[in-house]
Amino acid sequence: MSEYHGPVREMLFVIRELAGLDRIARLPGCEEATPDLAEAILEQAAQLAGGVIAPTNTIGDRQGSRVESDNVIVPEEFKTAYREYQSGGWAGVTAPAAYGGQGLPFLLGVAVEEMWCSANLAWSLCPLLTEGAARAIEAHASEALRDAYLPKMVAGEWTGTMNLTEPQAGSDLAALRTQAVPEGDHYRITGQKIFITWGDHDMTENVVHLVLARLPDAPPGVRGISLFIAPKFLLKPDGTPGERNTVRPVSVEHKLGIHGSPTCVMAFENAVGYLVGELNNGLAAMFTMMNHARLGVGLEGVAVAERAYQQARDYARERVQGKVPGQKGRVAIIQHADVRRMLLTMKAYIEAMRSIAYVTAADLDISLRHADEATRALHQARVDLMIPVVKGWSTEIGQLLTSLGVQIHGGMGYAEETGAAQYLRDARITTIYEGTTGIQANDLVARKILRDGGASLTALLADMRATDADLARYPALAAVRKAHAEGCASVEAAGRWLAANHAMNPAVPGAVACSMLMLLGTVTGGWQLARAAVVASEKLAADAAASAAEKEFLAAKLITADFYAGQFSPLATAYLRAIEAGADALMAFPDSQF
Amino acid sequence: MSEYHGPVREMLFVIRELAGLDRIARLPGCEEATPDLAEAILEQAAQLAGGVIAPTNTIGDRQGSRVESDNVIVPEEFKTAYREYQSGGWAGVTAPAAYGGQGLPFLLGVAVEEMWCSANLAWSLCPLLTEGAARAIEAHASEALRDAYLPKMVAGEWTGTMNLTEPQAGSDLAALRTQAVPEGDHYRITGQKIFITWGDHDMTENVVHLVLARLPDAPPGVRGISLFIAPKFLLKPDGTPGERNTVRPVSVEHKLGIHGSPTCVMAFENAVGYLVGELNNGLAAMFTMMNHARLGVGLEGVAVAERAYQQARDYARERVQGKVPGQKGRVAIIQHADVRRMLLTMKAYIEAMRSIAYVTAADLDISLRHADEATRALHQARVDLMIPVVKGWSTEIGQLLTSLGVQIHGGMGYAEETGAAQYLRDARITTIYEGTTGIQANDLVARKILRDGGASLTALLADMRATDADLARYPALAAVRKAHAEGCASVEAAGRWLAANHAMNPAVPGAVACSMLMLLGTVTGGWQLARAAVVASEKLAADAAASAAEKEFLAAKLITADFYAGQFSPLATAYLRAIEAGADALMAFPDSQF
Repeated sequence: MSEYHGPVREMLFVIRELAGLDRIARLPGCEEATPDLAEAILEQAAQLAGGVIAPTNTIGDRQGSRVESDNVIVPEEFKTAYREYQSGGWAGVTAPAAYGGQGLPFLLGVAVEEMWCSANLAWSLCPLLTEGAARAIEAHASEALRDAYLPKMVAGEWTGTMNLTEPQAGSDLAALRTQAVPEGDHYRITGQKIFITWGDHDMTENVVHLVLARLPDAPPGVRGISLFIAPKFLLKPDGTPGERNTVRPVSVEHKLGIHGSPTCVMAFENAVGYLVGELNNGLAAMFTMMNHARLGVGLEGVAVAERAYQQARDYARERVQGKVPGQKGRVAIIQHADVRRMLLTMKAYIEAMRSIAYVTAADLDISLRHADEATRALHQARVDLMIPVVKGWSTEIGQLLTSLGVQIHGGMGYAEETGAAQYLRDARITTIYEGTTGIQANDLVARKILRDGGASLTALLADMRATDADLARYPALAAVRKAHAEGCASVEAAGRWLAANHAMNPAVPGAVACSMLMLLGTVTGGWQLARAAVVASEKLAADAAASAAEKEFLAAKLITADFYAGQFSPLATAYLRAIEAGADALMAFPDSQF
Repeated sequence: MSEYHGPVREMLFVIRELAGLDRIARLPGCEEATPDLAEAILEQAAQLAGGVIAPTNTIGDRQGSRVESDNVIVPEEFKTAYREYQSGGWAGVTAPAAYGGQGLPFLLGVAVEEMWCSANLAWSLCPLLTEGAARAIEAHASEALRDAYLPKMVAGEWTGTMNLTEPQAGSDLAALRTQAVPEGDHYRITGQKIFITWGDHDMTENVVHLVLARLPDAPPGVRGISLFIAPKFLLKPDGTPGERNTVRPVSVEHKLGIHGSPTCVMAFENAVGYLVGELNNGLAAMFTMMNHARLGVGLEGVAVAERAYQQARDYARERVQGKVPGQKGRVAIIQHADVRRMLLTMKAYIEAMRSIAYVTAADLDISLRHADEATRALHQARVDLMIPVVKGWSTEIGQLLTSLGVQIHGGMGYAEETGAAQYLRDARITTIYEGTTGIQANDLVARKILRDGGASLTALLADMRATDADLARYPALAAVRKAHAEGCASVEAAGRWLAANHAMNPAVPGAVACSMLMLLGTVTGGWQLARAAVVASEKLAADAAASAAEKEFLAAKLITADFYAGQFSPLATAYLRAIEAGADALMAFPDSQF
């Protein structure tokens, strides 16, 4: 099976040069985040990801998981990998020191997380969900609940889940029916939840369920939803797991991909639950985790594409087929222009997607930790604007790239034995869960662009346009500069069109939202590649490359940016035109003719 | 499981109004192809496809096939469906009357074929391969071989296969190693073939293998390849199957999709084979089938997308989730603008793809049957130009659309039980087999555009531009007219750029080929929708609609064309820009930096 090597050099470049590790290290509590530490952590994570976790990826895909007497059984190899992850302290990388975590900035956390996702997406969802659940508990639960659960979760000894979806309530949480009835200091929860990722398993001694439910007298809709903790095993007075709670996995879904991740139907039958935060305010508690979770899923798009890319590249270097003009004999297919085009498409998009994700993670760190409130607010607004783009665009492009990975393999890509198809199958969930692309796009347009009158978008445009002066200094980047300027103009025009037209017809925002999301992804991704090309140009001009290899790495940044500018930046104009076409045709089309 | 209804009304509209059934019915031997016959045949095919074949689709996906003592066993339900297909005479729809066929034009054949593919792509490959093999035998085999094999194949009593690929020879047939040694009136064939679709099965009493192999003293490369017939069972003197030939299925692939189609590794061990056509001219024989086969795979892209569309539409009408502005209470998701956008995207692209495929089928009929040689040649050139577009573009867009089908289902699309994911998995092969998209794109640019100095492309452009005058008559089609004019300008500019730049660097044609293919698909697809809108406008203006339903059907054509013009035609400019960016970045990128 294919190997995986964490792209540490590339990650460090993005972390230092594009996301600004130095400014993150100046934040209170982030002093440890030096370049040396970043490198050391990434190297260690790469070893665990490549050496231990990655080999479990195919195994999980083939074996899947199953329910046996109210317990989910996962592949033995998953448990071994989890033990190494847990004993290495990886569960607490970004968690607060107060609960035993390392308190490192998210800028480093995302790079580590990307490697787990590349190594085995299905497996990685267990740590990711646990981090999310811990974050919700930290932000909203009582001190007693925090003390009881967080140290174990931060240590990776227990894992966490999110029980939101019900058969009639997917994207529409207002339709939730699961009931919580008060009983003494706790509640009794009854209902059925579906699509619960890692809803149960046998990797740890306890599973901490976060559950959305409503009290019998709660107001209807989302204003009547409360959040509860319902552990698989109730805690004994000494804090260790005791009696089994009446929550159990009923079945696991047979899914297109992420077979190793048990997606459970969960039955809560009068299960003991403890209120987290205020009554009827459960959705707000979920919303505090949303940016983290959506950033995480955006990263999954990057991560699976990276894994698919590495395998396709290795295959293209080995597979000999056909001839090319100007070369003698039969050649490796990487020499064929069209195969090369597909590989460079994967590489350029992956670098663009990774960069916007990491830069957004750095903005998230600043929004949480900066001493100055106004600076925090400014970065919070940027994070809010970019999260749906990182989530929506990177996962949509992730589909495209994992499909190209199959295509590069030709017929061998369609045979499951090579593993190329698994990445396509695994990646396919990422545009769906944690809010579909449609949900992200509507969030972007309605809440992040229109609600503040375009202020956040205007601020982003100003930042993007500032790069023009840098690009102007390097004649070799003329095409990149032109594409970037056109991209900015398209974003500005789309914003103007939205402002002028969104109120004309209630269907307008929803009809153009997806194009707006793809437009912003295309342009902000290209912007980061342009910034990378500027940094590389500066270093090359200053003769600052430490080695010939470093020089070649930097020189390639100019070409990648140029390739993206030529091949993908032109899509910005197409998305703008699609937006300007508006909702008329869509809404005029009669239901009967579908 | 989901139902399938052959879109007969839509097909008849394309056949009559866009592909010109009347001019086909004027061709020698096509007199029977009246509108009434077309309707009758399509209605009958829709019944068989929807009532008998479609229900086997999920069964085949779940059961797959297996090898047992040198025989492939397929699901029992496949055999039942095949018997109905065979006894209904469907195997001979377009086959010559001399061998028992109905001799109908391909324009009707493609519509029937599309329905089989929609109903069960995996199953349909068996009839499709048989038709292809029969065509090769008809065109190249001796009279004795034709008489021995064709009546049985045209009657569907025996099926056919194509044994081309070997482990080291996929897209690169020059690397074939299978050997054929002369022995009396036949040859002895030895070698291993892979990816042999329906290489063996238990649906019929014999399987007729066409095999590419080379004689011991054959010239190297493609000029040393010969074509042979090697039946599973050798024929007795009375023409019935007798002794088993030494060719057997070794294993079936475990694939991403089309599980019901046995993709075999075939072992030829001194198997008896009969030469088809001239020695060392086997590739030419395969090439005569290529246009049919590639048209067929392009249709598969349409067909699977149509099935995915029907299911997504039905789900979107039933699934209640969330609210929309201006409507009371929770609504079916088809009312959400973004879901509606995805559905109309599917519908508009499917109609565009179907139209270029059917129009190309009509051109194929004219190229084969017209009395005038110059007319035949003209249409042959159009067919040659359009085949890679129909094959490449329709299958690439087919990926996109089947993925949208999953997306419309949300989380339920990712669970295999709904069947939405099967269409995505099944469709994924179509950009790979019968020549990958890269192969199609290179064929388009090198053989179909550059080789004749752009003459075919110029002729196409002239035809496309003639539609402008029609569009100009209807003010409601102003946006469609503008998009069509821009699309034509993009195609023309791309052709000019190619002519001027293809010789500068041998990598140029390959680097821009895929963009050229997508550009031509986008513009020719939009052209057909524009033509449909013109026809609909004419009929509506003349009050020629037979009923209110017919009027609504025609009115929708204007909206579909408008939607496509607004949403997808702008991609033409993006493809042109990608072409004009050329191959420099791609070829400058160093191997070491992948």
